[in-house]
Amino acid sequence: DLVQAILAALRPVEKPLAGKTALVTSGPTHEPIDPVRYIANRSSGKQGHAIAAALADLGADVTLVSGPVTLPDPAGVRVVRVESARDMLAACQAALPASGLLDVAVCAAAVADWGVDVAPQKLKKQDGAAPPAIALRPNPDILATLSAAGPQRPRLVVGFAAETESVIDHAVAKRARKGCDWICANDVSSATGTFGGDRNTVHLISADGVESWPDLPKTDVATRLARRIAETLISP
Amino acid sequence: DLVQAILAALRPVEKPLAGKTALVTSGPTHEPIDPVRYIANRSSGKQGHAIAAALADLGADVTLVSGPVTLPDPAGVRVVRVESARDMLAACQAALPASGLLDVAVCAAAVADWGVDVAPQKLKKQDGAAPPAIALRPNPDILATLSAAGPQRPRLVVGFAAETESVIDHAVAKRARKGCDWICANDVSSATGTFGGDRNTVHLISADGVESWPDLPKTDVATRLARRIAETLISP
Repeated sequence: DLVQAILAALRPVEKPLAGKTALVTSGPTHEPIDPVRYIANRSSGKQGHAIAAALADLGADVTLVSGPVTLPDPAGVRVVRVESARDMLAACQAALPASGLLDVAVCAAAVADWGVDVAPQKLKKQDGAAPPAIALRPNPDILATLSAAGPQRPRLVVGFAAETESVIDHAVAKRARKGCDWICANDVSSATGTFGGDRNTVHLISADGVESWPDLPKTDVATRLARRIAETLISP
Repeated sequence: DLVQAILAALRPVEKPLAGKTALVTSGPTHEPIDPVRYIANRSSGKQGHAIAAALADLGADVTLVSGPVTLPDPAGVRVVRVESARDMLAACQAALPASGLLDVAVCAAAVADWGVDVAPQKLKKQDGAAPPAIALRPNPDILATLSAAGPQRPRLVVGFAAETESVIDHAVAKRARKGCDWICANDVSSATGTFGGDRNTVHLISADGVESWPDLPKTDVATRLARRIAETLISP
């Protein structure tokens, strides 16, 4: 660790994102059903956390809004922990700079599409009675909200699409629907091991088309994405 | 650690449960909704894991059937990891001794009352469409199944009741309904911090009535319960 730190300190430093501000969301959201139950998803936060770390490595001032994960906080990143999608949106809005624009927002969190109207007491099983209905309601759409045109729209908005079928088609449609600039689409079928695993196969979808990256460690996906973001933000 | 180990080795050893078999369930269950979403609950597994460790400390041969937790396996305990309630029941039944009786079963897991008929592909949000219905179905009742009279019924069956209101009344009714011998009732209202926390206030409900223990660390609750189990199993 000490040797690593010394080597890192001696290495010529490239900080193309110095002075740039970034917001990254990561992890799942938990949507409470009652005081003890909730709806979750299999996102580990590994990809989002790695992106926050990679942007910070390139010099960006990074705020990471994270759902419940068991990962350590990345070094050099401001971390805000939230539980539900509503909390995550509020934290993202609070992270927008009071003056000036956010340079890039990367929405890597697996935000629940639906929340539940929370029961104030634990739902009880009644012998002989039918199971209770869980009434879902749409959650706020964080990616679409950040992508909407307006004076606070980040200069570059990147979304993720976690799909189990027709990955690219669904992601191309999602990019158009949400109004974001790029979508990183990945296949999260259980056979791929993407959710919770350490590797990811990403298709980067932009106005220029589809760029399919090879299967890579999530840290390398993060580095590659951070470099692409830097190129885009510093090009004239 | 070395000093502790030497002291432990020198301490006069009491193994009142030597030769006895125990099954403990612990943690939450995760009930899949589709390939990425699931219903979870706030159980950390701390209480159940501590009980498995305490029974092993008293010499019992312990199988711990655990839902998804982030805890390390207790030393000296056989651990079977499961996800859903159905898997947990199957693992419990597989853990029953082929010949002879299980001496004690402690059902400390927070088993989901309801599962979901799993969608084979990720449920998609459709703009303008109502949220999908999540059709719940009753899960197998592990405590009632283990408590049912029959040649394989464990000699002593202990359940847990996690309640947010009318804690003792609900637990007394639960004991009668499930057919178990004892219920450890605890208040898991979020204000108590029981779920995920390190302390617990337990009411032990048996045919003899209600015994309310003070607020204790979960490890002390486990030690106290393991001793009560030992007294009961070795009394004539």
